[in-house]
Amino acid sequence: MGVDNRCVDRETCLSFDRQDPLASVRDEFVLPEGVLYLDGNSLGALPRQTLPRLTQVIGEEWGSGLIRSWNAAHWIEAPARIGDKIARLIGAQAGEVIVADSTSVNLFKLLAQALRVQPERHFILTEASNFPTDLYVAQGLIELLGGNHALRVVERAEIERSLDGSVAVLMLTHVDYGSGEIHDMRRLTAAAQKFGALVLWDLSHSAGAVPIDLNAAQVDLAVGCGYKYLNGGPGAPAYLFVAKGLQEAIHSPLSGWMGHAAPFAFEQEYRPALGITRQLAGSPPILSMLALEVAIDLWLGIDQLEARRKSMALGDLFIKLVDETCRDLGVEVASPREARLRGSQVSLRHTEGYRVMRALIDRGVVGDFRTPDILRFGFSALYTRYVDVFDAVRRLREVLTSRAWNRPEYANRLPVT
Amino acid sequence: MGVDNRCVDRETCLSFDRQDPLASVRDEFVLPEGVLYLDGNSLGALPRQTLPRLTQVIGEEWGSGLIRSWNAAHWIEAPARIGDKIARLIGAQAGEVIVADSTSVNLFKLLAQALRVQPERHFILTEASNFPTDLYVAQGLIELLGGNHALRVVERAEIERSLDGSVAVLMLTHVDYGSGEIHDMRRLTAAAQKFGALVLWDLSHSAGAVPIDLNAAQVDLAVGCGYKYLNGGPGAPAYLFVAKGLQEAIHSPLSGWMGHAAPFAFEQEYRPALGITRQLAGSPPILSMLALEVAIDLWLGIDQLEARRKSMALGDLFIKLVDETCRDLGVEVASPREARLRGSQVSLRHTEGYRVMRALIDRGVVGDFRTPDILRFGFSALYTRYVDVFDAVRRLREVLTSRAWNRPEYANRLPVT
Repeated sequence: MGVDNRCVDRETCLSFDRQDPLASVRDEFVLPEGVLYLDGNSLGALPRQTLPRLTQVIGEEWGSGLIRSWNAAHWIEAPARIGDKIARLIGAQAGEVIVADSTSVNLFKLLAQALRVQPERHFILTEASNFPTDLYVAQGLIELLGGNHALRVVERAEIERSLDGSVAVLMLTHVDYGSGEIHDMRRLTAAAQKFGALVLWDLSHSAGAVPIDLNAAQVDLAVGCGYKYLNGGPGAPAYLFVAKGLQEAIHSPLSGWMGHAAPFAFEQEYRPALGITRQLAGSPPILSMLALEVAIDLWLGIDQLEARRKSMALGDLFIKLVDETCRDLGVEVASPREARLRGSQVSLRHTEGYRVMRALIDRGVVGDFRTPDILRFGFSALYTRYVDVFDAVRRLREVLTSRAWNRPEYANRLPVT
Repeated sequence: MGVDNRCVDRETCLSFDRQDPLASVRDEFVLPEGVLYLDGNSLGALPRQTLPRLTQVIGEEWGSGLIRSWNAAHWIEAPARIGDKIARLIGAQAGEVIVADSTSVNLFKLLAQALRVQPERHFILTEASNFPTDLYVAQGLIELLGGNHALRVVERAEIERSLDGSVAVLMLTHVDYGSGEIHDMRRLTAAAQKFGALVLWDLSHSAGAVPIDLNAAQVDLAVGCGYKYLNGGPGAPAYLFVAKGLQEAIHSPLSGWMGHAAPFAFEQEYRPALGITRQLAGSPPILSMLALEVAIDLWLGIDQLEARRKSMALGDLFIKLVDETCRDLGVEVASPREARLRGSQVSLRHTEGYRVMRALIDRGVVGDFRTPDILRFGFSALYTRYVDVFDAVRRLREVLTSRAWNRPEYANRLPVT
């Protein structure tokens, strides 16, 4: 099913789908008729088991079990239990990952601890194209701490040569949200650690998109979100990772009762729990959390290398079709053309990108737009078909050739774009 | 339906229920057969509309609408929209409340801002019997800030005389989680403000239990949880309040993208949004948040003074029946006997309180236990019947007279107790 130099027609794509070893996984999702959903990088699709499970959680566990379900339905164990499952997807050990809060809040927690454990080091090093909220969180923390710390923001190409003994933590997003470009996690982690820095990876655009092996890369800290490729649902709780060897050396500044060594002893003094549990703060949103678990359970049945092979093939196919059919129509590929260098998305540039995406969405091709000119198309290996890619590019071509994007209603920005 | 000096029998309780103007509200909840649920102060019961609404949210808004639902289903507006609704329940204006994160995380945010806006003041003043997580959060923040700040913990009777010009913020829980005792919000707020301190109230045990008028009391800051009397579901998102006049003077140290002035501009520098929105951090858990909204909508149809009258009457009835039938059985009332001084719970003390509660739960009377010896019984005015109170006390009497609590399996502590 490799994409080679021959022309690819719709029949060929259908034959790719027939040979796809992951084809049947699509049946595990509920997908609307008539929509080519290429935005699983922003909000993953709904697993078929989520609604039945949430019906049980709401009706039986909450409705009938009531407060007793914290024990009887094992709600209290959910953050660690689901964390252990996510650990298996990102190359971590049991007890190294826990589900909690949002990615932003988890990032705040871990950055604060990374600075505190190395008080003589003053810098958080990151890159200019990092996901903006990661920069904002670092800025907010540094302002709160007052004076002694700074955020050093460099271009991608300057990261390694910007490392020195003043860097407390190198904070990077593994897969770039705009271009989809993948960082070399192992090399950058080793490079930073050579200078004694800790390394924190944001896996939000990686988990479920590309294989990750945190332990093999000897990563110190990581955060990630549950609602993109992992399919945990809108605003699903996030997760965080702390390498075993570091866990007892740090503790969270957001020291809420769920991270206490004895949360029901109601002691007056905070004592952090052992292990990853000390990273918890307040009570977790159980409905959203158990929806995430359904999706993670689905992921645990997937051969991740097979998923990676398919997502690379889907991206290659998309690029090939855009090259063949959208030449001279104002779009250019903004992602690495070499599949191993990009995550599970392909971005295109168009000067009227916002309007083009609005027009595409109106025609049932759902991707998203990122300012200033990026059209993003995500290829979840679990439910995207080769023929979807073919049809999406055909509709893109139609929008571009007809200039359907040039309608006045597409000029108005929606709150979320 | 007042509880006076006459003996109250079961028939009388049934007649109270027949005359109860809120009796029909119970039909708005799903409650299990055979359970007397007196723990709505810890996890509120399931509103009947929650499951149909979540079925729609999951199946239609997530499943079919997918990413488009952030706009089309107004997910993006949910934190502010539900905040505005909660504002009506706690005497705040529209734009003063927003739903976000957990109570612990919100407390961290607001305490940090209260300290930062008054850099010459070094103390957070609170009381020893405050809910422990509130103390932990303050401790974690102070440790993070390093050196200049301290938590001053005093006994309840010492609060007012401990106020002085060194206090940055007075942090109190309005209704005590253990005894149910209510603080005089208006008097304490004014007393602290006379010394120039800000005042932060934790409303977790108040909202839905007692009338609150934050604006009338001229409160500066508040936090509260959605899953107790408000019935938002297990671990429902929390809310926070910042008085209008203070909103632009402070900004959150947890500066995530949802609190940015232009979250989809993807700027590199954090710029706080105007108003209460700047208190948001990361993406909210939409499933849990929209379950909370169902419960808040239900609350908006309730006459809160009527609810307060009923909850006081239920508590008075409980105390009267305990006095009459459980004398010399080892329990004593640990809450204020005067209804206007307590929230919507009555606590009892028993030296074997943990085992007594386990035995009660096994007999279908669900309250909870708080260390070292407190049995808590919560009386949600929305679904608790007078006859439930009668039957619960009868079963309590049976457990105490039979010493049914003295079975070996009740000695083992459950994770959540």
